[in-house]
Amino acid sequence: MAATDEAVGGRRRGRAGGGGAARRAERTAVVSETARVIERLVPTVEVLDTEALERIEDAAEQVLAEIGVNFVDNPAALARWRDAGADVQGERVTFPRGLVRGLCATAPGRFTQHARNPAKSVDIGGDRLVLAPVYGPPFVLDLDGHRRYATIADFHDFVKLGQMTPWLHHSGGTVCEPTDIAANKRHLDMLLAHMTLSDKPFMGSVTEPERARHSVEMCEILFGADFVAQNTVLTSLININSPLTFDSTMMGALETYAAAGQACILSPFIVGGAMSPVTVAGTLVQVLAEVQVAIAYSQLIRPGAPVIFGAFVTSIDMNSGAPTFGTPEASQVIFGAGQLARRMGVPFRSGGGFTGSKLPDAQAGYESANSLNTALLAGVNFMLHACGWLEGGLVASPEKFVMDADQLGALHRLAARPAVDDMTLAMDALREVGPGGHFLGCAHTQANFKTAFWRSGVLDYRPFETWEDDGAPDTRRLANAKARKMLADYQPPALDPAIREALEAYIARRKDEVADAFA
Amino acid sequence: MAATDEAVGGRRRGRAGGGGAARRAERTAVVSETARVIERLVPTVEVLDTEALERIEDAAEQVLAEIGVNFVDNPAALARWRDAGADVQGERVTFPRGLVRGLCATAPGRFTQHARNPAKSVDIGGDRLVLAPVYGPPFVLDLDGHRRYATIADFHDFVKLGQMTPWLHHSGGTVCEPTDIAANKRHLDMLLAHMTLSDKPFMGSVTEPERARHSVEMCEILFGADFVAQNTVLTSLININSPLTFDSTMMGALETYAAAGQACILSPFIVGGAMSPVTVAGTLVQVLAEVQVAIAYSQLIRPGAPVIFGAFVTSIDMNSGAPTFGTPEASQVIFGAGQLARRMGVPFRSGGGFTGSKLPDAQAGYESANSLNTALLAGVNFMLHACGWLEGGLVASPEKFVMDADQLGALHRLAARPAVDDMTLAMDALREVGPGGHFLGCAHTQANFKTAFWRSGVLDYRPFETWEDDGAPDTRRLANAKARKMLADYQPPALDPAIREALEAYIARRKDEVADAFA
Repeated sequence: MAATDEAVGGRRRGRAGGGGAARRAERTAVVSETARVIERLVPTVEVLDTEALERIEDAAEQVLAEIGVNFVDNPAALARWRDAGADVQGERVTFPRGLVRGLCATAPGRFTQHARNPAKSVDIGGDRLVLAPVYGPPFVLDLDGHRRYATIADFHDFVKLGQMTPWLHHSGGTVCEPTDIAANKRHLDMLLAHMTLSDKPFMGSVTEPERARHSVEMCEILFGADFVAQNTVLTSLININSPLTFDSTMMGALETYAAAGQACILSPFIVGGAMSPVTVAGTLVQVLAEVQVAIAYSQLIRPGAPVIFGAFVTSIDMNSGAPTFGTPEASQVIFGAGQLARRMGVPFRSGGGFTGSKLPDAQAGYESANSLNTALLAGVNFMLHACGWLEGGLVASPEKFVMDADQLGALHRLAARPAVDDMTLAMDALREVGPGGHFLGCAHTQANFKTAFWRSGVLDYRPFETWEDDGAPDTRRLANAKARKMLADYQPPALDPAIREALEAYIARRKDEVADAFA
Repeated sequence: MAATDEAVGGRRRGRAGGGGAARRAERTAVVSETARVIERLVPTVEVLDTEALERIEDAAEQVLAEIGVNFVDNPAALARWRDAGADVQGERVTFPRGLVRGLCATAPGRFTQHARNPAKSVDIGGDRLVLAPVYGPPFVLDLDGHRRYATIADFHDFVKLGQMTPWLHHSGGTVCEPTDIAANKRHLDMLLAHMTLSDKPFMGSVTEPERARHSVEMCEILFGADFVAQNTVLTSLININSPLTFDSTMMGALETYAAAGQACILSPFIVGGAMSPVTVAGTLVQVLAEVQVAIAYSQLIRPGAPVIFGAFVTSIDMNSGAPTFGTPEASQVIFGAGQLARRMGVPFRSGGGFTGSKLPDAQAGYESANSLNTALLAGVNFMLHACGWLEGGLVASPEKFVMDADQLGALHRLAARPAVDDMTLAMDALREVGPGGHFLGCAHTQANFKTAFWRSGVLDYRPFETWEDDGAPDTRRLANAKARKMLADYQPPALDPAIREALEAYIARRKDEVADAFA
């Protein structure tokens, strides 16, 4: 599939090369095929008109001026806000109208996150769409069908699947929680996996400010300290404690990354009706207020620090309180948030292959496809959770990973506009075939069929009888076989052994500094 | 679910009432809940710019002028075309530039198809979206898991499910082929089922011109002859034999319906790369040429006859030759065809819950959701196959029917724009809750939670443990239970017994006229 697609495997030119490790990798690596970042040429769906957008923006200003936000356990942040002109009472910060929006103006509209393989560096912002895998599940539904706590071995498998997936531009971050390693040490093993098992860009740790510092230091080993000082090599996920609360752990990680010029996704995590008002418009007001404060704060730390306007928003089943996914209200929030982000001129993160299902079944398919299509048409620039997500994010699934990843290939095609030119208008074919004929054998078809249609690497189109003779496999079974084959075929990208040794020595030293903690 | 949705159950006002049967039904029927036809307020996705659209229109004119189309076994049609100014050589008809487009000008941009329950009449065209079930499968995958030939009992079940589904506006036509009834008689039983088991609008027979006449005559019994003479009570599916061929069976049915002022969907049936060029643009050229000829021909029969621009287009797996569904190229064709239909100013039919899967599994979910979302955003006005379709249309499935129908509820919500006003902006809720609180108990949530979010009637959001204790059902199993319950709960809409008797007498007379034929 990938080999026949023209969008895959091309090396990107005209980009500043990576550091020493990157240059060495470029010379020696077996180049694995990865599609170029999506250039979204289809128009975005604009569900809100200008008047509605302005009302939401005005209401967000009102929230910031009248209600404000809490910066918890963070006297330095309070001092920064006071100095910037905000009103600080206890931990509550309120903002004169225009202050926050004004501070956001220095955030770049677009930036490059470098990979150690420069061909896999990604542009984030504008009309680009970067796809990254699932983030955060403590459980896996493994290839033997067991739902259990995730381990570092599972983590390695997901990074390998990501490296093998041509439609995934980014290796992600916590693709699952390696719960068999101490909570205060596992970030080191996760980073090592991304750095050695993949040559795609990746994310840093956010669970303690110190772990963010470790992430940057490991990147200095991988890319060279000079390169890291001058370039963005990490994009990390900073969640906001909605409603309107900024805790010192996440803000501490943001402070570390922003000071180092590394990128952060600043993302309210909202189950609508619980952590935000039960309406689409009210949720957008809150999302905008929260994201603006976070972006403004990043610019207080370092003007020009790269950021992404994040919106993780889902709806809720008001009878059971369970979060729901792939629903129309979640789509409306994502469409609207995309419009608000574009008006601010910053990159936008949302979407993913979301589902509440416990299995990779029809529910998972409907909900994930709804979410993926919405994300593309909402103008998302960075899509976390693009593949592998199950059970409301509690579970990572290798079967779901390859199913979703297959759909990401389709998304690449859907993002393009159909070409209309002499070749595609196909007048010669229409003349050659004429009324009542068929096009399978005509010259135009023969010349173009290889690249004409997206082709699934998972789904089944065999005739019923053939499929039945083969045991009548459902999608889950087909995906299981595909995931097993990908893991069997996996080959690590080349890496300078000296760098690998230096990374391992760094990790050993850091691990020796502290006792294991599983909290 | 339905009972709490404000869009459901409202009676449509300001409409001319139906005939005698309709008025009697209105007095006596238990009003079953059906959502209003969708008013699509979200913008359409315009994948082609004006220049591209004009090139496609120009190429279609070129096809009509240089290549032409065949009207097979239809001397009357050839004579009509000759009289209209076309060039006829044998069965090939070519058209001076502008002739066909000019004839299309009398086709109405919008029309009403009346149901015997006037509250369920549907507006077709403009910004309206009417949803109708699967059409044509010879097989069913039944509720016991058996794939077998469909029977009239299955047909009755699908009509009952359609009647029970609030999100389906239309009862459809050949919801499955009742293969246990002679091919030359089954249309009578199918019509009787739609007329008696449902009070929604329905489709007529197209498999012989005589059967189209029977369809109209049965409607004259149901609605009254005067009402049928003055109103549209049937919308029927006329497939074009792509490429560029119009057979006498389908054209004969079109002639019958158009002369009677009844609506037809004029629809190329295309597997791209086989029945049309392998490119999106080339397929659109052919679709436009074919549809324009069919619409023009309907207007030659009766200027002003109601029609729908149809496009059933799917892609092909060029390795196996199998048709594929829910693919990006199919979406691009549907987006483009919607633009072309809007430029002609006629209603547009496309889309559906399409899948190539043999099972209602994840593949079915992904592909169907892709198709449904595309259809909404492509501005489809009449969506056939909206629910129940499996295995490339070979199979109708009651499980898939209720899964898709559930998603159609979501589509109703997605079609609306999110409201932005004082209530939805929710400043009071944001003030009441403040930083760090939660919204579940606040006054705004309590006042609005019942209608805030679309709620699935099939999908599972229970916690893992609860779900596991209940036997860990996948979506198929949940849908199976729901379909069984709907069929058990079904109650027929009231119908004047005299009309029912007259319909049965008509059918008995028609069946006596001919011997059974299964070909």
